[in-house]
Amino acid sequence: MTRFKLTVEYDGSPFVGWQQQANGRSIQAAIEEAVRRFCGETVRIQGAGRTDAGVHATGQVAHLDLDRPTTPETLRDAVNFHLRPDPIAILEAEPVGPEFHARFSARGRAYLYRIVNRKSPLALDHGRAWRIAGELDAEAMDEAAQLLVGRHDFSSFRAALCQAESAVKTLDHLSAERRGAEILIRAEARSFLHHQVRNMVGSLKLVGLGRWSKAEFSSALAARDRSAAGETAPADGLYLTRVWY
Amino acid sequence: MTRFKLTVEYDGSPFVGWQQQANGRSIQAAIEEAVRRFCGETVRIQGAGRTDAGVHATGQVAHLDLDRPTTPETLRDAVNFHLRPDPIAILEAEPVGPEFHARFSARGRAYLYRIVNRKSPLALDHGRAWRIAGELDAEAMDEAAQLLVGRHDFSSFRAALCQAESAVKTLDHLSAERRGAEILIRAEARSFLHHQVRNMVGSLKLVGLGRWSKAEFSSALAARDRSAAGETAPADGLYLTRVWY
Repeated sequence: MTRFKLTVEYDGSPFVGWQQQANGRSIQAAIEEAVRRFCGETVRIQGAGRTDAGVHATGQVAHLDLDRPTTPETLRDAVNFHLRPDPIAILEAEPVGPEFHARFSARGRAYLYRIVNRKSPLALDHGRAWRIAGELDAEAMDEAAQLLVGRHDFSSFRAALCQAESAVKTLDHLSAERRGAEILIRAEARSFLHHQVRNMVGSLKLVGLGRWSKAEFSSALAARDRSAAGETAPADGLYLTRVWY
Repeated sequence: MTRFKLTVEYDGSPFVGWQQQANGRSIQAAIEEAVRRFCGETVRIQGAGRTDAGVHATGQVAHLDLDRPTTPETLRDAVNFHLRPDPIAILEAEPVGPEFHARFSARGRAYLYRIVNRKSPLALDHGRAWRIAGELDAEAMDEAAQLLVGRHDFSSFRAALCQAESAVKTLDHLSAERRGAEILIRAEARSFLHHQVRNMVGSLKLVGLGRWSKAEFSSALAARDRSAAGETAPADGLYLTRVWY
């Protein structure tokens, strides 16, 4: 038996999310089905981040165990072949030791959130970014973002459904940067609460629009109450970009 | 009557191309229909570049004449409203003089061609780039590209259907640049022959793969014969990015 680490890219739009659910197709199930078609083995794939419906990935990591001897290149190419026409691609497969666990061994995760700040709807980036018509001050957003970096109780940015034992997390990096009409928000931490990135982005939007001062943003964090913070940003703009070990 | 200049973004995938054709829906027809729904006027829209089926735009320019008095912002927002759910967006509308013609007044056009150079299929960029598995030498491609800059007979890179009187054109800029797994090819000229950019890219690919030397690339141009050059790159990777006046 060999354990393989997979690096995975996907367009989350047509899926119910990474994890198998009763109400539709998941990315995990699509990959498991492709593995079955390739070698006949029924595997259970473990992902590093359980991305929600509509959330994308350019660097999700997962692992699986295969009885059949195969090379990483064959595994990658064969699973990609059987994944067609689903918008999921195995970027890399590599053999790892039996102690490797995509979720529990992860030392950090990075997300990118894409905002397109313009009056017109999105033609090319529909479903791939959050379009915000009102003019956003990216520098103000970046300054407010720094207030969340570090160890805090993130209850204000935590989904009601979140199953984590504690809302206290350490956020290693949060930044907002304008590139033309786009605003790129990057977040890094060992782990995140459910909807944490999208909820932080929803509050940063209020700062960007000038509706919240830095002090008001800070109060939202201090409140430890979800209703004190901004809306949940849509899934469309969120990308799991990297997981490290 | 007021003439308006429109700047337009679109995902070309679901369309037969910019121009109206018998075999399906065009971008031009979709915008004309949206204008009709907005103000009841039957207009004919002129575009700066007649992009082929599957070719995208981030900066196509078009013009139209409207009898009904309206502001540029209202025209932009109303046409965008009536374009839904088509992946076409009017980025800007501005009033211009009656002498302005989107196609004939244009002094230059810029195209971007996106290649993703990797073994795995494209999940997020499916239909938005050309995936090439074999490793490409972008520097060699850029060096070869310089041989096409200037005034030449581009018969080797001209589609059989091309209706231009002459194949002699001046290419102002052609470059290839690697950014991670992507290779971005940029082309600028007053005007291009039919399929010229895609045909140049198809030959640059042969240089990138090491199948053609710079001398062989040069011979392909000198042959003035379409069969001497490489394949036509797929429409998926091509973007009309800018038109200037």
